[in-house]
Amino acid sequence: MRQRFLRACARQPVDRPPVWFMRQAGRYMAEYRALRRSHSILEICKTPRLAAEVTQQPVEALDVDAAIVFADLLLPLEVMGLGLEFVKGEGPRIDPPVRSAAAVRRLQTDRSAELGYVGESIALVRGHLGGRLPVIGFVGAPFTLASYMIEGGGSRHYAAAKSLMWGEPEVWRELMERIVDVLAPFAALQVAGGAAAIQVFDSWVGALSPLDYERFALPYSRDLIARIRAQSVPVIHFGTGNGAYLELFRRAGGDVLGLDWRVELGSAWDRVGHGVAVQGNLDPIALLAPLPELRARVHAVLDGAAGRPGHIFNLGHGIIPQTPVEHVRAAVQMVRDYRAVPVR
Amino acid sequence: MRQRFLRACARQPVDRPPVWFMRQAGRYMAEYRALRRSHSILEICKTPRLAAEVTQQPVEALDVDAAIVFADLLLPLEVMGLGLEFVKGEGPRIDPPVRSAAAVRRLQTDRSAELGYVGESIALVRGHLGGRLPVIGFVGAPFTLASYMIEGGGSRHYAAAKSLMWGEPEVWRELMERIVDVLAPFAALQVAGGAAAIQVFDSWVGALSPLDYERFALPYSRDLIARIRAQSVPVIHFGTGNGAYLELFRRAGGDVLGLDWRVELGSAWDRVGHGVAVQGNLDPIALLAPLPELRARVHAVLDGAAGRPGHIFNLGHGIIPQTPVEHVRAAVQMVRDYRAVPVR
Repeated sequence: MRQRFLRACARQPVDRPPVWFMRQAGRYMAEYRALRRSHSILEICKTPRLAAEVTQQPVEALDVDAAIVFADLLLPLEVMGLGLEFVKGEGPRIDPPVRSAAAVRRLQTDRSAELGYVGESIALVRGHLGGRLPVIGFVGAPFTLASYMIEGGGSRHYAAAKSLMWGEPEVWRELMERIVDVLAPFAALQVAGGAAAIQVFDSWVGALSPLDYERFALPYSRDLIARIRAQSVPVIHFGTGNGAYLELFRRAGGDVLGLDWRVELGSAWDRVGHGVAVQGNLDPIALLAPLPELRARVHAVLDGAAGRPGHIFNLGHGIIPQTPVEHVRAAVQMVRDYRAVPVR
Repeated sequence: MRQRFLRACARQPVDRPPVWFMRQAGRYMAEYRALRRSHSILEICKTPRLAAEVTQQPVEALDVDAAIVFADLLLPLEVMGLGLEFVKGEGPRIDPPVRSAAAVRRLQTDRSAELGYVGESIALVRGHLGGRLPVIGFVGAPFTLASYMIEGGGSRHYAAAKSLMWGEPEVWRELMERIVDVLAPFAALQVAGGAAAIQVFDSWVGALSPLDYERFALPYSRDLIARIRAQSVPVIHFGTGNGAYLELFRRAGGDVLGLDWRVELGSAWDRVGHGVAVQGNLDPIALLAPLPELRARVHAVLDGAAGRPGHIFNLGHGIIPQTPVEHVRAAVQMVRDYRAVPVR
């Protein structure tokens, strides 16, 4: 139900917490793997018919309360003028990496419209769902995108990214501003396509100390989130590994704070205050546990929310490929069946 | 000065915070790389003369306040009956991985004395240093060792470890108890060799939710730490990625809490209370920053400690290989030169 999700984002009472899963469209589903045999990730992303199909697969299979468009955080890098490919067993590769003032100045910021295919995918899904469920759009957070661009792919230590950040703070600022200038219209075209909310994924923010987050990432996330909220949709702001400085993360201004699983939901919500909604935060690996253990964990998350309006049930990170689909479906049912609201 | 370090562990006043670095002996040093051309990691660990040489290299080069014995967290796996090798570019490989009740029952717990070479390395270093500086010994925390054993090496998701933990809690308990039964005498032989303190490294604890840490890891870490403290040496308890549940980590009973860099030292210390010493917590990548930026970051850590007795300056994780030695030496000097204690 579209309203259940939107009401939860706005911290209004709902019949029960809405539930969806990060990476609910993906390799753990046979239908997705079948499609991937004949199409690359980028092909699926760029073919709205296919992206819509993949987006809808889990909606049918799991009975979740929201769809999230199938796309990739890194798509904007292409329209900024960088090469992007996904190397089997290795992950994304960005070529050339961005490591100098000149490379930053070459980044293009006026081609977001070329990402229109993501908006089209969203529009197709909306058409299929007939307004029954919301479609969530998403973008990467500026720090995460900047790190990918500088490192040229995944990274263990983020040494190149941090070296640029600390060594050439003016170049860093220029890079982050350009990224925001591409992401804001990219989010807007997703909203125009019918996205009911935008999630901002700061997947790599956990590499940063609180000091560095505040100085080198927060200002740009805040700017991006403000520009998305100006489109009149709620923003879900998710970060990984940032449990020790959620208070700073809160200051970026999202309507919903996405929590990773290394925090206890109830105490995290207390810390950031109940003036923000929260999303999360089951350990994704719990979906591999025996069902009674999974149930205990689903209940622990729901207990943490204490029946307070403004909780969206989700994982604390994405579903991993070896997850059994039946367990994901079972988790949805556990959220639906949960009633007990503990007295505090 | 041996006393400076030991007094800081006991939260007694010192002239200035002692300083040492995790992985201060390692690949960023030319002397170490030279030795590695002719010897494997395991050869160095098992040859006290070589291990002592590597242990002393940074003491000479950096002028730090403590040596930490060159060894590896995973050495105990060999005396438990598992194969251990370090594969170039891949990291440790454990064979066979431990994934069943039968495999756990086969683990041997009476051969810790075979790790005596680590005690000998410590004794050699002590002899060389002539009591001038303390030598720190170390062991892995039970959760970290169990994860390595179950996964068979490094891991991204810890799916096998968590599956065993949740699916067969009695097998998990048996595994953790056996690990503690090997680690406690291993630590004792390091103390007998002359270790002035033992650091317990929970490198992978950041994979766990607070709930799981409390239930599946904390009891065993607490038991281990109590058994080491019974040897009359202080225990430094270090974990990565656990910034959101330091309060639980504190309950494991270490004398010194090692903080990773994703927490602000002052507020982390406030959270766990000043009845424990703290160690940390400069981002190790900051050692790659230009010196003025590095200095600002060293000072920020020292400012966080606010001149309170019981702070040992260190990184928030190990030194990475591409770190310039001169910057590490400069960081030591910055700690020595720091005077300003901000009024709170």
